[in-house]
Amino acid sequence: MSERLVVIGGDPGGMAAATEARRRRPELDIVALEKGAWTSYSACGLPYLVAGDVVGASDLIVRSPQQFREQHAIDVRTRSEVMAIDLDRRRVEVRDHEHDRTYELPFDLLHLGLGALPLRPPLPGIDLDMIHGIQTLGDGIELVEHAASIGAQRVVVVGGGYIGVEMAEAFVQRGAQSVTVVEAGPQVMGTLDSALGELVGEEMGRHGIDVRCSTAVEGFEPGAVLTSNGRIATDLVVLGLGVTPNTALAGEAGIDLGVKDAIKVDHRQATSAAGVSAAGDCCESYHLVARRPVHIALGTVANKQARVAGINLGGGHASFPGVVGTAIARLCALEVARTGLSEREALAWGFDHVTATIEASTKAGYFPGTEPMTVKLVAEAGSGRLLGGQIVGGQGAAKRIDTLATALFAGLNVTDLIDLDLAYAPPFSSVWDPLQVAARQLAR
Amino acid sequence: MSERLVVIGGDPGGMAAATEARRRRPELDIVALEKGAWTSYSACGLPYLVAGDVVGASDLIVRSPQQFREQHAIDVRTRSEVMAIDLDRRRVEVRDHEHDRTYELPFDLLHLGLGALPLRPPLPGIDLDMIHGIQTLGDGIELVEHAASIGAQRVVVVGGGYIGVEMAEAFVQRGAQSVTVVEAGPQVMGTLDSALGELVGEEMGRHGIDVRCSTAVEGFEPGAVLTSNGRIATDLVVLGLGVTPNTALAGEAGIDLGVKDAIKVDHRQATSAAGVSAAGDCCESYHLVARRPVHIALGTVANKQARVAGINLGGGHASFPGVVGTAIARLCALEVARTGLSEREALAWGFDHVTATIEASTKAGYFPGTEPMTVKLVAEAGSGRLLGGQIVGGQGAAKRIDTLATALFAGLNVTDLIDLDLAYAPPFSSVWDPLQVAARQLAR
Repeated sequence: MSERLVVIGGDPGGMAAATEARRRRPELDIVALEKGAWTSYSACGLPYLVAGDVVGASDLIVRSPQQFREQHAIDVRTRSEVMAIDLDRRRVEVRDHEHDRTYELPFDLLHLGLGALPLRPPLPGIDLDMIHGIQTLGDGIELVEHAASIGAQRVVVVGGGYIGVEMAEAFVQRGAQSVTVVEAGPQVMGTLDSALGELVGEEMGRHGIDVRCSTAVEGFEPGAVLTSNGRIATDLVVLGLGVTPNTALAGEAGIDLGVKDAIKVDHRQATSAAGVSAAGDCCESYHLVARRPVHIALGTVANKQARVAGINLGGGHASFPGVVGTAIARLCALEVARTGLSEREALAWGFDHVTATIEASTKAGYFPGTEPMTVKLVAEAGSGRLLGGQIVGGQGAAKRIDTLATALFAGLNVTDLIDLDLAYAPPFSSVWDPLQVAARQLAR
Repeated sequence: MSERLVVIGGDPGGMAAATEARRRRPELDIVALEKGAWTSYSACGLPYLVAGDVVGASDLIVRSPQQFREQHAIDVRTRSEVMAIDLDRRRVEVRDHEHDRTYELPFDLLHLGLGALPLRPPLPGIDLDMIHGIQTLGDGIELVEHAASIGAQRVVVVGGGYIGVEMAEAFVQRGAQSVTVVEAGPQVMGTLDSALGELVGEEMGRHGIDVRCSTAVEGFEPGAVLTSNGRIATDLVVLGLGVTPNTALAGEAGIDLGVKDAIKVDHRQATSAAGVSAAGDCCESYHLVARRPVHIALGTVANKQARVAGINLGGGHASFPGVVGTAIARLCALEVARTGLSEREALAWGFDHVTATIEASTKAGYFPGTEPMTVKLVAEAGSGRLLGGQIVGGQGAAKRIDTLATALFAGLNVTDLIDLDLAYAPPFSSVWDPLQVAARQLAR
């Protein structure tokens, strides 16, 4: 009998590993278990589903269970929840919600793509119907249907990070009369340093979003959110508080957990248990700049880790060097991106650092359609090693973050940035790219 | 008496060195000699002046002679042409066209920003009034005035490289009835490999430009261009045949010339003559991928070299590591970029190489406004070292070339590209950036 690989999780952290293993080992018996109804969809697309930019939920599905079965010979079982992992007996206990039965499934190799769970603070009223998480495709579909059925005009988003801001904008675009973002911290987009985060907050105001920072949510009652700064009447609440690794199952099985209870993995995505790998939002990543394990729940990281895990499951040899903390978003009319360490992170992690922040333009200053952009760079004092960067600006600003992400990956310093042969033509940039203008400022 | 630095050339290759030297040595006597009437303008903006995107020539001027005098205490002398350099007596002979006189100017330090000259093939009729070069701001102003005064409806552009294609598009935008590009080679944009160059040629056709490849210009007569494929009636001819380093003066003075008669410089931008540096279109660059000197006439390179030369003239220590051959353009509705070695160059320079070409999309495939983009990568066989890349696609495609330029600068290989923590959100990219899709294809 051929060896069996069991994959837990139908998201990229699981399925990208399954397909990579399949490519290398045609004879492997692969079973993938997903507790929901869908596989391999773009969770990052959910705000655009709510906004109406994307018309149908099916547009967000990259590969259906049927496609995995037919094109990749992977036995995908949806609505199949793993209740326990027995490492000694090498089997998992599966709850088949479709047929209301439980069975045991033996494995030789096990791969965990357990994902993450949205944070749901244990506040009074948290289970009211008007409160929606926005983590899965099912969540997105439910939210859209609920908003439409009650004709929701007042929406409160709890949390001013990426998903919170994107959801707020989505409801403005849907035509909601009032959209309020409640953020406990002093600024939205806490992943950016304050001056750049404020640019986003101002832009949200211009888009008609009521931004309330330094405001803690204390509870909910039908038709209202109760906060440290008063009661906000609302038809609908969206929770955008981030996620936590979904690792109870792994922890109970005795697999080592690390930062924020994410599964510890080595460079080959192997866990502490023999023959068990993990990838995606459930596990740690190594931060190449901070030089420490971190938990970053992003689809890009999940796909890369899963590819590496899949190559190794398939008998190859691959390693995942780590992440540099890149993220990007279009928030209202602003493009926003960051990579490496923010100044706040550099401080928190004890890096002796210097920074420079400059104002520049997305195209040549005289070119029609040029828009402002702000760049902040953080570098190590003394060595000049680049530690991170942040960009906020108009069209064409944010994807420049990839240049910094590549520089961080390669360990370049600020004077290297000045020397880079970056592309210039008037429709794209000033002759010194804004990143280099910032680097020159920092070098002085 | 304080030391005197004489700078020849009012373009960035000269003036950026002058301002950098000034910043470091306030006491230095700096005289800059420019044979034309303008300093420090964006030559890359000329097509947009012709197109009408940029309304006034003054928009293209970064700093006027007056600004250099007042803000940087640089004695800029326009309409002042250097006729000879005497290295032994350390003086230059200056022809002052304004006052119709000639004088000698002694120097302690000399910096050459001599620029380049547009190629003007010695064909019959090349001196006809209807034929315009397009190298200087003066050329651009003359061309616009001439086109307007004769109401030019038929335009022929000779040469299908960046400037030729940009000028052809500019005349379409001005409303010319017929615009023809005559290219001697088998494709336009010979800087791209053939499949990608053809995408540009097709796009030009859709924009109403008559593209005639494999067609040699044999001469001109009033109202017509004579080619190997027949006569083309025209009101105006624009020469877009590229440039050659303007180094006769340097060569006559005994300064060593190298590739394509560009001035030989070391990593500090020093020439073979003591106390004489050079930067910009007149001198060589070191190609970090090809590992050989090359001549690349681009404003970005000129500015970087001039910055390094200026730091050294100012008593500091800087070196210019070299270029990787990055270039970008918006051609009709397409964005086009390249860096490193094309397959043609890899072949010519003897690199054992492999390539991959993929089709992807500028944003997530389901996202509104996503457009196709094509990526070609070239890598060294065996080592997997990245050698180059080319991109042709819709909005947001081409500036991604900076990621490859940074990877080339850092000497990354194709598997590193796969691991890069590039930014993803649906308005910007697919979850695997198209560059990584190409890298994965190449790694297989």
